[in-house]
Amino acid sequence: MSEDTASDSKCGATTDSTDASSKCGGSTTDASSSKCGGSKSTDGSSASKCGGSKSDTTEEQVTATADDFDADPGRLVAVGLGPGQPSGMTTRAKEALRAVDHIVGYTTYIDLLPDDIVEAAEDIYSTPMCGEVSRTEESVDRTLAGNDVAIVGSGDPNVYALGGLALEILESKGGSASAVDFEVVPGVPAAQSCAARLGAPLVNDTVSISLSDHLTPMPTIESRLHAAAKEGFTIAIYNPWSRKRRDNYEKCCEILLEHRDPETPVGVVHAAGREDEETEIVELRDLPELGETDLIDMTTTLLVGNDETYVWDGRMVTPRGYERKYDY
Amino acid sequence: MSEDTASDSKCGATTDSTDASSKCGGSTTDASSSKCGGSKSTDGSSASKCGGSKSDTTEEQVTATADDFDADPGRLVAVGLGPGQPSGMTTRAKEALRAVDHIVGYTTYIDLLPDDIVEAAEDIYSTPMCGEVSRTEESVDRTLAGNDVAIVGSGDPNVYALGGLALEILESKGGSASAVDFEVVPGVPAAQSCAARLGAPLVNDTVSISLSDHLTPMPTIESRLHAAAKEGFTIAIYNPWSRKRRDNYEKCCEILLEHRDPETPVGVVHAAGREDEETEIVELRDLPELGETDLIDMTTTLLVGNDETYVWDGRMVTPRGYERKYDY
Repeated sequence: MSEDTASDSKCGATTDSTDASSKCGGSTTDASSSKCGGSKSTDGSSASKCGGSKSDTTEEQVTATADDFDADPGRLVAVGLGPGQPSGMTTRAKEALRAVDHIVGYTTYIDLLPDDIVEAAEDIYSTPMCGEVSRTEESVDRTLAGNDVAIVGSGDPNVYALGGLALEILESKGGSASAVDFEVVPGVPAAQSCAARLGAPLVNDTVSISLSDHLTPMPTIESRLHAAAKEGFTIAIYNPWSRKRRDNYEKCCEILLEHRDPETPVGVVHAAGREDEETEIVELRDLPELGETDLIDMTTTLLVGNDETYVWDGRMVTPRGYERKYDY
Repeated sequence: MSEDTASDSKCGATTDSTDASSKCGGSTTDASSSKCGGSKSTDGSSASKCGGSKSDTTEEQVTATADDFDADPGRLVAVGLGPGQPSGMTTRAKEALRAVDHIVGYTTYIDLLPDDIVEAAEDIYSTPMCGEVSRTEESVDRTLAGNDVAIVGSGDPNVYALGGLALEILESKGGSASAVDFEVVPGVPAAQSCAARLGAPLVNDTVSISLSDHLTPMPTIESRLHAAAKEGFTIAIYNPWSRKRRDNYEKCCEILLEHRDPETPVGVVHAAGREDEETEIVELRDLPELGETDLIDMTTTLLVGNDETYVWDGRMVTPRGYERKYDY
């Protein structure tokens, strides 16, 4: 799934260090450590860098800059893990993770890593869902301190994920993308791994829209939904639901039903690649009620068909138009 | 890159058989072969199934049906190869290809396969760029004849590719998705593998649009471009140019410039993952002229930034909005 920006729960930064001689002990490391430090010295609490992201006004502060580090910077690579199982990773992603010293990521994604990669890493820094800014800053600080670092997430670093934030923070710290040899290793996005489970729902022009209004204002999201629904795109909807965003989901259903037939097939994929994975194909008219069930939550991706999408033998099919040109 | 529907060149079906005892000799196999046949008996020419797709009215015919095959059907899997290098494939894709008897695909994609997979396959059926309908039919026929078959393409089977066509043809032949255990193995789409080369151009809501009007009417494409450009989506443009589609590219530039600042960054990735790969970041105003150069052709993907996208240290960055909420 995508990195998300919601943060309803309390959470504290944790470090799963696999090496007692690690140069970076994660959030408990002393600031005098030559290869870490910088922004981490202001508060000894392991939860200090995560608690701030729970409201619109955050206390997260990024304070260290490139000048605070003596060492030559290391390499920084943003790695997409794909659908959630090690077998969904590319060979290149695995090689990239084996080549770095430190791996930084959301705990759930770190748990997805193959054992040999976890064992080979000098240090793993993980935080629960929240604090993506502090986590990303951590990856940048460790890089500027001279370590080769990977920041990981499921899906692809370019799909609602931290590839851009890493560059923004690097810039704000006076670093440069060239100096850290910044690289993005792409992965299979959630839209495509969910589509695969459903058949062929997205083979034509497609829009991806996140319903999270944490970073994008709701009127913008609504306007994009109207446009996508009107123009016959198939639509991949990320982050459809959380306690904070029930209204957004309901509004989304309303907009889709304004433009599309109530019988339009919609693929619902809950917790793709996890133990509680569940996949259903429903009709658009069923979506509002489905929002009351456990099927729709933060881990769900919706794939909305267009006017031509149909269901056949348990699969969603969006024709590309071959049937108008060829006999078969 | 995506499977494309253009077919400007003459082409003939070819078979790279790696096993002399192959049950299917590709397009030259006799119809009496128990595991092939069906639709292939009408014409002995190896080019017979590919020549028809060159115009709007095609002679391609899909004639064999599930009833024509005595055997229990095999398995059919649509496999996305990702960016074009073996290292960009997922472990699952490699395992899927090792598990099948036959691999069917466009010659360029077949050439991308790791040697051990090619050597292990009982038969490889490849055709040059054209005839995606006959190629897909070939994969369905071979499956119905009792073989386990993979149909492959670069990128993802759900992104302008053959996942849907395989299901459509299967249905038209009276087969069923369940009976052939139809499976899609997702891959990294071109939009994401190209975005990775450019930094973080697509981290927010994104549209993908193909400029090929072979299967989608140009007025629909234009209307979608207007909507995408107006609504602040980042835009991945597939199939921007061929001899037949120069007008579409020019029209696309015109529409984008109507809604977006001429200085909007646009990433241009030519032949991603191939020897003649070339990547440039230009301004939107430069696109029309660029269309006169070799940088823009069938193998090019364009990634158009939104109003907030900027270029920093050679990378395209589309902020997600963190900078409005956090200090860094």
